[in-house]
Amino acid sequence: MEMSNNNKKQFLRNTWYVAALSSELDGTALLSRTLIGETVLLYRLENGQVTALRDRCPHRFAPLSKGTRKGDDIVCQYHGLQFNAEGQCSHNPHGNGKIPRACAVRSYPMEERDGFIWIWMGERSKADPSKIMDCSILSTKPASAVGYIYMYNKCNYQLLTDNIMDLSHIDHLHGPLINTNGKLSPLLPKVEEQGEVVSVRWDWLAEPAMQLFAVHLQRPDDQANQFFQVDWHAPSNMHLRVAAVQDSMDYENDGLMLYDYHIMTPESEFSTHYFFASARNYLEDDADYNAAKMAGMEQAFVEEDKPMIEAQQHEMGDKDFWELEPVLLSSDAGGIRVRRKLAEMLEIESA
Amino acid sequence: MEMSNNNKKQFLRNTWYVAALSSELDGTALLSRTLIGETVLLYRLENGQVTALRDRCPHRFAPLSKGTRKGDDIVCQYHGLQFNAEGQCSHNPHGNGKIPRACAVRSYPMEERDGFIWIWMGERSKADPSKIMDCSILSTKPASAVGYIYMYNKCNYQLLTDNIMDLSHIDHLHGPLINTNGKLSPLLPKVEEQGEVVSVRWDWLAEPAMQLFAVHLQRPDDQANQFFQVDWHAPSNMHLRVAAVQDSMDYENDGLMLYDYHIMTPESEFSTHYFFASARNYLEDDADYNAAKMAGMEQAFVEEDKPMIEAQQHEMGDKDFWELEPVLLSSDAGGIRVRRKLAEMLEIESA
Amino acid sequence: MEMSNNNKKQFLRNTWYVAALSSELDGTALLSRTLIGETVLLYRLENGQVTALRDRCPHRFAPLSKGTRKGDDIVCQYHGLQFNAEGQCSHNPHGNGKIPRACAVRSYPMEERDGFIWIWMGERSKADPSKIMDCSILSTKPASAVGYIYMYNKCNYQLLTDNIMDLSHIDHLHGPLINTNGKLSPLLPKVEEQGEVVSVRWDWLAEPAMQLFAVHLQRPDDQANQFFQVDWHAPSNMHLRVAAVQDSMDYENDGLMLYDYHIMTPESEFSTHYFFASARNYLEDDADYNAAKMAGMEQAFVEEDKPMIEAQQHEMGDKDFWELEPVLLSSDAGGIRVRRKLAEMLEIESA
Repeated sequence: MEMSNNNKKQFLRNTWYVAALSSELDGTALLSRTLIGETVLLYRLENGQVTALRDRCPHRFAPLSKGTRKGDDIVCQYHGLQFNAEGQCSHNPHGNGKIPRACAVRSYPMEERDGFIWIWMGERSKADPSKIMDCSILSTKPASAVGYIYMYNKCNYQLLTDNIMDLSHIDHLHGPLINTNGKLSPLLPKVEEQGEVVSVRWDWLAEPAMQLFAVHLQRPDDQANQFFQVDWHAPSNMHLRVAAVQDSMDYENDGLMLYDYHIMTPESEFSTHYFFASARNYLEDDADYNAAKMAGMEQAFVEEDKPMIEAQQHEMGDKDFWELEPVLLSSDAGGIRVRRKLAEMLEIESA
Repeated sequence: MEMSNNNKKQFLRNTWYVAALSSELDGTALLSRTLIGETVLLYRLENGQVTALRDRCPHRFAPLSKGTRKGDDIVCQYHGLQFNAEGQCSHNPHGNGKIPRACAVRSYPMEERDGFIWIWMGERSKADPSKIMDCSILSTKPASAVGYIYMYNKCNYQLLTDNIMDLSHIDHLHGPLINTNGKLSPLLPKVEEQGEVVSVRWDWLAEPAMQLFAVHLQRPDDQANQFFQVDWHAPSNMHLRVAAVQDSMDYENDGLMLYDYHIMTPESEFSTHYFFASARNYLEDDADYNAAKMAGMEQAFVEEDKPMIEAQQHEMGDKDFWELEPVLLSSDAGGIRVRRKLAEMLEIESA
Repeated sequence: MEMSNNNKKQFLRNTWYVAALSSELDGTALLSRTLIGETVLLYRLENGQVTALRDRCPHRFAPLSKGTRKGDDIVCQYHGLQFNAEGQCSHNPHGNGKIPRACAVRSYPMEERDGFIWIWMGERSKADPSKIMDCSILSTKPASAVGYIYMYNKCNYQLLTDNIMDLSHIDHLHGPLINTNGKLSPLLPKVEEQGEVVSVRWDWLAEPAMQLFAVHLQRPDDQANQFFQVDWHAPSNMHLRVAAVQDSMDYENDGLMLYDYHIMTPESEFSTHYFFASARNYLEDDADYNAAKMAGMEQAFVEEDKPMIEAQQHEMGDKDFWELEPVLLSSDAGGIRVRRKLAEMLEIESA
């Protein structure tokens, strides 16, 4: 399953991807990660700023990540070529030391914000940080109300997008903590498109609220208003709000709300980096609750979503999604809109 | 070795395959097994009858075997679609609940007989249970005279057929318990074709009989008449009789006889499910002997046949048998007849 | 990475390869090894001479290495065909025992010299043992001054050739025992071609000598003259001399010298057998030093070269070296000359 049967372009290039969590990159680490099929070396300059270079020495293709740091430069361990943080060769120990014109590695525009390290894999001149999905709520909450998780999945990234764009699966796949007890599936989710953002929303009367929230509501066993809203940004970055409130429709002020981010970055056609973050508007100072909540969310994903989605990928093999002629249900409205939009964007970029 | 170099059709479809041993499928189990490249879900209805569905939800291709039972129906764990034992969608929890016309999975004609669960992977209208190989002797003997084994092999199923159709290998490959001491190889095995059954037979004067039998004959160290007969049924199902007798040619009444079944069902081009069963006409009430005999047969296969045949496959790689220009020996007569007959059947089915 | 993207011929056939170290083949062993994509059975005749047969029975392609010896013959364990040391079938136990004309396996011209077992994989008539690289110094030294190592690498053999042809990597990749402290990289190595041998040489003034030598020189901390010389023989066999001397230019008589052999035999396009031998002209009777020196050399290779070269191969994937447009440095002069020469030889052999 290394290669696709179809020759369609798989990945957008002119877009921002999350390359790593901020917490994955400490002061001196050289982190190698394959992003949309390309090996990239990520590291922090001495001033703390993040930089990224193609992880392939142009001389003999040794990974620079196996090299050593010299200040902000990287020295290739195989034959000693040295590259600066912009990817220019800054020292050639060989012969007269002249640096061959082609002796450079690609560097990538980077932005670090709100606990995520973003990378631009496309044409440098088009990199516009204002296009990065707004995750600023993660920075406005205290650390005890915010958590981050990195997960790895053996599947195409679009299956993970589908999973979030169709939250009716929570009715069926998940355990009692977050199960929605069949309330979502009968609804027609509201799908909207605003600019390049596709949103899907479910509003329902829960009886009682999801267990995760119910225990923190005034009347745990009673009805509550709930909603899910997912805002998708290309190519596979989603902001998900989940909330419950009683005797009000003002979720943010009177209720309990989670601000979740599900951000997928393809490693290859059949493997994906999954970056997850979550903040909340209740018990914001309770670090123990925060740790328990994050652990519960990771467990739900790792034990419930991941095995199902990887099994789905295994069953699909290297076949194209549409060639397999999926039966479409009402709950697919958001996911299908996103698949079509992404396909258009891929086609435009290929043209 | 995932794919073949040649584009020839590999598997008959309009034929009965063994999907599982009866003993592999208990009351509530959902058994997923890949048969001729297709994932199939096997389970028993509440009345004990066996059913089989394509193990792929038509919505998002999640394996139904990861779902749950609801009476005789299966509920997909991912988005809750429910399917009955005929593969029809019986409940759609989404939207207005209308069931899309294409929302169904393939079901397969099944027959359970004599400890084997047979499946028809071809056109439903052609499924004729009277074509199933007769294994009824397994049901006429007491349980203490019958045994079943499931084995898994990383090789093409035709190599396993070859192995049984040319029993001269017992002269060379096997340990003392079943070794035939060079008696088979010099013989020209008698090959016959009756309808769609190809038979190969060796008759010889053993001095003494195979150890397995000899210890149960009146005069263990003396001569005995012996024979092997294999009756092949397409695509890879064989009935093997082995017998020894002294002072008689009436093997069944005066001698010792094994009634063995070697049944291979391809998983993929290079992997095969191997179903083995064995009954006998002596010590029929001795359960301890039965267990020891079955263990000995499994050990012979797992330690002697299997490593050799998997090594043979490894050496052949993904090359076609005939392209490798095998040298043919007199003992190949039965196996070659079967390969040619199967090739004809595959060609007719492809036409 | 099983198959190449390019269809170029990968391996010379009309050339001598090392198939094994003499020490790998004891009196009765049947050693199976894949050489340039072909499985070969290596064993010693009763007179101690080495022979090699294609490790594939022509009947059903079972590996003969799974068989048994009968004097100098090999009996296939699957159906009992017997082959002599020349690969002729010497006994067919089947039917009337007539031996089919095609019933033979290829045998290979072999030469055992100086601890290496050489094999000729090409046209038999062209096998000329006088073309084998001279390694006789290994036999002239006492056993306590000679060592052999077999290593296995998951990379193309040409990457291993490049590694030895460009010893400037020792400045950068290796630990203190053999590190050359940046002295090699600034030099323009002297490249010479004599007949089919390509040589590359570095001479430098070490301050002090490589640690390996320095401790055995009269004045360990002082300057020493040093040189490296590599003589490459097609396809991937290299003799490397390393030496240090003080107050003289007569390395052999006044100095310390290592006589190393780096000999690579492709297993497949992306895996290589690595045979290494080393002799020296100092402490020749010190078996403990010999063991420690060999262990140090193995460790340097296994912990330093091998991970880097396998990572390089991984980064290159199945791409052709030249298609990746390597930046060339002055130290590449020898390696590039060898790559071009080998490409020519492969082209001539393909024509």
